[in-house]
Amino acid sequence: MKSIGINGYGTIGKRVADAVSAQDDMKIVGVTKRTPDYEAKAAVEKGYDLYISVPERESQFEEAGIEVAGTADELFEKLDLVVDCTPGGIGAQNKTDIYEKIGLKAIFEGGEDHDAIGSSFNAEANYADNIGEDYVRVVSCNTTGLCRTLKPIYDISGIKKVRAVMVRRGADPSDVKKGPINSIVPTTEVPSHHGPDVQTIIDDINVMTMALLVPTTLMHTHNIMVELEDKITTDDVLDAFENAHRVLPVQKSLKLGSTAEIMEYAKDLGRSRGDMYEIPVWKESVNIENGELFYMQAVHQESDVVPENVDAIRAMLELEEDGEKSILKTNKAMGIL
Amino acid sequence: MKSIGINGYGTIGKRVADAVSAQDDMKIVGVTKRTPDYEAKAAVEKGYDLYISVPERESQFEEAGIEVAGTADELFEKLDLVVDCTPGGIGAQNKTDIYEKIGLKAIFEGGEDHDAIGSSFNAEANYADNIGEDYVRVVSCNTTGLCRTLKPIYDISGIKKVRAVMVRRGADPSDVKKGPINSIVPTTEVPSHHGPDVQTIIDDINVMTMALLVPTTLMHTHNIMVELEDKITTDDVLDAFENAHRVLPVQKSLKLGSTAEIMEYAKDLGRSRGDMYEIPVWKESVNIENGELFYMQAVHQESDVVPENVDAIRAMLELEEDGEKSILKTNKAMGIL
Amino acid sequence: MKSIGINGYGTIGKRVADAVSAQDDMKIVGVTKRTPDYEAKAAVEKGYDLYISVPERESQFEEAGIEVAGTADELFEKLDLVVDCTPGGIGAQNKTDIYEKIGLKAIFEGGEDHDAIGSSFNAEANYADNIGEDYVRVVSCNTTGLCRTLKPIYDISGIKKVRAVMVRRGADPSDVKKGPINSIVPTTEVPSHHGPDVQTIIDDINVMTMALLVPTTLMHTHNIMVELEDKITTDDVLDAFENAHRVLPVQKSLKLGSTAEIMEYAKDLGRSRGDMYEIPVWKESVNIENGELFYMQAVHQESDVVPENVDAIRAMLELEEDGEKSILKTNKAMGIL
Amino acid sequence: MKSIGINGYGTIGKRVADAVSAQDDMKIVGVTKRTPDYEAKAAVEKGYDLYISVPERESQFEEAGIEVAGTADELFEKLDLVVDCTPGGIGAQNKTDIYEKIGLKAIFEGGEDHDAIGSSFNAEANYADNIGEDYVRVVSCNTTGLCRTLKPIYDISGIKKVRAVMVRRGADPSDVKKGPINSIVPTTEVPSHHGPDVQTIIDDINVMTMALLVPTTLMHTHNIMVELEDKITTDDVLDAFENAHRVLPVQKSLKLGSTAEIMEYAKDLGRSRGDMYEIPVWKESVNIENGELFYMQAVHQESDVVPENVDAIRAMLELEEDGEKSILKTNKAMGIL
Repeated sequence: MKSIGINGYGTIGKRVADAVSAQDDMKIVGVTKRTPDYEAKAAVEKGYDLYISVPERESQFEEAGIEVAGTADELFEKLDLVVDCTPGGIGAQNKTDIYEKIGLKAIFEGGEDHDAIGSSFNAEANYADNIGEDYVRVVSCNTTGLCRTLKPIYDISGIKKVRAVMVRRGADPSDVKKGPINSIVPTTEVPSHHGPDVQTIIDDINVMTMALLVPTTLMHTHNIMVELEDKITTDDVLDAFENAHRVLPVQKSLKLGSTAEIMEYAKDLGRSRGDMYEIPVWKESVNIENGELFYMQAVHQESDVVPENVDAIRAMLELEEDGEKSILKTNKAMGIL
Repeated sequence: MKSIGINGYGTIGKRVADAVSAQDDMKIVGVTKRTPDYEAKAAVEKGYDLYISVPERESQFEEAGIEVAGTADELFEKLDLVVDCTPGGIGAQNKTDIYEKIGLKAIFEGGEDHDAIGSSFNAEANYADNIGEDYVRVVSCNTTGLCRTLKPIYDISGIKKVRAVMVRRGADPSDVKKGPINSIVPTTEVPSHHGPDVQTIIDDINVMTMALLVPTTLMHTHNIMVELEDKITTDDVLDAFENAHRVLPVQKSLKLGSTAEIMEYAKDLGRSRGDMYEIPVWKESVNIENGELFYMQAVHQESDVVPENVDAIRAMLELEEDGEKSILKTNKAMGIL
Repeated sequence: MKSIGINGYGTIGKRVADAVSAQDDMKIVGVTKRTPDYEAKAAVEKGYDLYISVPERESQFEEAGIEVAGTADELFEKLDLVVDCTPGGIGAQNKTDIYEKIGLKAIFEGGEDHDAIGSSFNAEANYADNIGEDYVRVVSCNTTGLCRTLKPIYDISGIKKVRAVMVRRGADPSDVKKGPINSIVPTTEVPSHHGPDVQTIIDDINVMTMALLVPTTLMHTHNIMVELEDKITTDDVLDAFENAHRVLPVQKSLKLGSTAEIMEYAKDLGRSRGDMYEIPVWKESVNIENGELFYMQAVHQESDVVPENVDAIRAMLELEEDGEKSILKTNKAMGIL
Repeated sequence: MKSIGINGYGTIGKRVADAVSAQDDMKIVGVTKRTPDYEAKAAVEKGYDLYISVPERESQFEEAGIEVAGTADELFEKLDLVVDCTPGGIGAQNKTDIYEKIGLKAIFEGGEDHDAIGSSFNAEANYADNIGEDYVRVVSCNTTGLCRTLKPIYDISGIKKVRAVMVRRGADPSDVKKGPINSIVPTTEVPSHHGPDVQTIIDDINVMTMALLVPTTLMHTHNIMVELEDKITTDDVLDAFENAHRVLPVQKSLKLGSTAEIMEYAKDLGRSRGDMYEIPVWKESVNIENGELFYMQAVHQESDVVPENVDAIRAMLELEEDGEKSILKTNKAMGIL
């Protein structure tokens, strides 16, 4: 039973904590928090020991009636591995300033650069490469989403070139400060950074991406066009998606024709926090014309990377050598279809 | 163990089904559905027997791979009570066309008129009046919300007059057809129907309401002004809210300053479907000036009435004589604070 | 022909510039800008001389191809009066740091405190009080909106008490950074500051307000309840609104039942920038019950104060002694109904 | 001075009416309307003679105080050409049921099928082909947008293949009934119909499109990838866009980085109704990598086709033989940059 900690109990951190707790070969020893807010309160109510990142604020937590178990540094000493879910850029600092100094293995999230961490992770695509690694980056929600569906296509057909337009939600559901309220905001750096990031996982795929922000909080969507190497059929692709891990073909004709209805479906399935860990692909959108495959998928930005974090822990701590077995074990514990 | 059915497994129906299933003195025997969509699919995956309202559509369900247990009429024969969660107005028709003819007790939701059903229900305010009743209407989400917080104030101070402005969400979260996308739409019938509906529960409260629609899917909010009979303090009111059932005082200062953050909190609490059964009241908004109390609350339109349905079942089937005991029993089973 | 300048050519400033330009007794000598953006570009294209607030940035304007006429200080020397449309709080600083030192009359907007400026202005309610004044604050869009419709009621009936709930747009139309995208955000300071601000104009009206933010960019709406002194009818109120300046009764039944449709109507009327200077009141919402008047109105946050600025200039520079005459003159020049 | 009528004075119809009125070789004789709403009222206030499509409703117009000049059939007799702006599909019916019978030339909008009308129009691309034609379809806002920027690229380089993802606004600004409020809704028919529609104008361009709806009312955006025939540079493309008619390169760096800011800019330019007739292209997004051109553009769905309607009138009535001259004449009259 390996001892895991979460540094940064926020949108991703709290989900990884729950996912780790659902496994039988690892457990959460504690989580860290900077601010005494309702998330901190809920963490303690849920039974997690709470360690504070800013020791001077202990009295603030006391005033808010939130029990503190110690400081972040005290937590780190008790761990086999820390999952760093701090905001983008902080993780890389923590790596050099803290984890390397005390010899603590660490996972980082997609807000960090590949080069700063050294290794990037997607369970389906490169589990084996990360066995025993000390520092690993689980790639971002969007890169994870692209890898999940491109890998199976790559395996059955080969890929000449991928073009994708990423339609991104403006803010996370509980973020009420960020807009836009009524506007489309293009990311004018074209191609966007999403394409090259896929290559940190599958290095010989050529992926060109464009991205934009829209006024929704629910999910991103990806509009994907793939020039195929081999001649395959739409059914081949649908089969590949059905057989892939953490990919969920859905049907508009069953009233799953939008990100909102998919989020409702995740609630109906009884998922923790209503999360959708899989990448839903709209079956009706899958179509091949003149050797080019078109499809549309959605990405639940808060949760698709969560099972990947669990698998990364298993690889890094050498709890399981076979990626496929880890994926199935994680899925079963989390109720993934 | 009483046998309960749900007629209309939609937004409210599926929640009542889960809430009933969580109790130890009643169980779900089956649910009905008109259309073979993902909700129907999820119902069967969850283990509910599915009965179809339109027998001619059986082949459509078969094609969609959704197992059918029988017709709605066949279900009704097996029940001690049906909870009718069909769209507004259909319930009253079902009462005369079906339930009265076969002598089946039935609960209706807030979309029906009080007069068409005969009795209206709120657990805290009038449980005792509904013991043994055959046909009972659980009042709407908004009326439930008003009753929950007005009753405790009424009990400690008496109320001269209530004024409330109801800011309503434009559509339920999974409804992608309805707007508005970027507009405020006032309900120009002023006062609105919400005030008189409170009087079906607490008959001597004078409540004047105004209502409007805004572009959000998450929760309604109520902006309430109460002219008090007696001289009480803000602390008296906060105490009354703390002690009331299914009222949840929350603090903006702990980052719960919006409906979005409250919805996130419900997820953090591990609530089924991320539901918030209680009426959150913003503590910072509670204020008395010159004998008039001001406060702001939110209403989770999809779920606040759900525990009320459970209590109504208990009253109507005489499973429990004491409303307080039923409330506590329901709350415990559903994880209500 | 009086010489007017605009300090801060933004959302309000550019509209005041155009409104002043439409008059025959005053003209715009120049406007100031801090940043070389499209607003600055459009100002020059429109023919306004552009003066820069941060002289060091002259090269930035040059690079962007925007012609600069001089510095803000150079502009101030040429003016009879400056309209300060800088962000809230900066105006009061400018008053003491600049305008008082060089003896320049100045108008400030609603983001400044009444006490910091000394006098508050609404053309209909207190034009006469501001004749010859040196420093005057045109009250905020919301306070202006409340004064516009409360004054006529006050005049025909007297007012015991006003309660209003202000439903505010989350951000201005071109502000893509601010949220909320999908949430209601209550202002938990209750009563809000809007009520007392009305008293800077009509001192013996007791106005209690509550406020909240919603995800729209178009207009605020006010839900107003007025306890009347005298017995009047709904028709009396509708007549008073018809006869009031800058109040526009509109009908939901003619498809003007939302803020979005009202904004479209303003475009159809050929208004500059599609602005709605009047306060639209929904006729269907006007209703008296038991001596209390209810009504709903909208406020175009970007433009309702614009004609007030013109009238304030006339009062302060003693161009016209009679407020009514100034209002009619301003209205005619701006195409106000 | 040719006599033009508008059949269907709605979102597009009212704009075409104003655009025609701004020309010196054609005039509006009358417009038709079905419903006595504020648009009808504003039409009359603006000076247009109003003819009613449903003669039986004359009394409804009278009651609403809207003056009626006659019936639609009476209007048609007075015209040289009618612009049919009725909802999609109605136009084709009107063609066979009315216009062909009375020998009236007619323009239709993009909601009609190419085959039903016979000829499709874009001023820049195929003006000459439509000279003297009796029935012409001005292609939709999206097809117009694609033609405007693809034509200049086609002219300088040749085009192998175009891929585009069309991010569409959920509803027009004044449409408060339609959603989605908080969801992305993909159009799962992939490729979408937009690509083939371009070929009704430029027949040898291969355009593959995907489309989706998002919760905004302002503009569509297009994310475009063009495989080029010839080796050209980004500067060549920017030059081509600068020189093209009705294409407006804009800079994010001047705070024009979103559809909302572009709409504000159109207001700042003093455009009628705040319309943006040009296709704005974000300069920063224009980029060529490995022979493939990427760029992002926006489409003001309510107005980009408006000047095209004017040019189509000129071609069909043989008022001008040279398309370029017509474009320049229309642009000048409408204030197009």
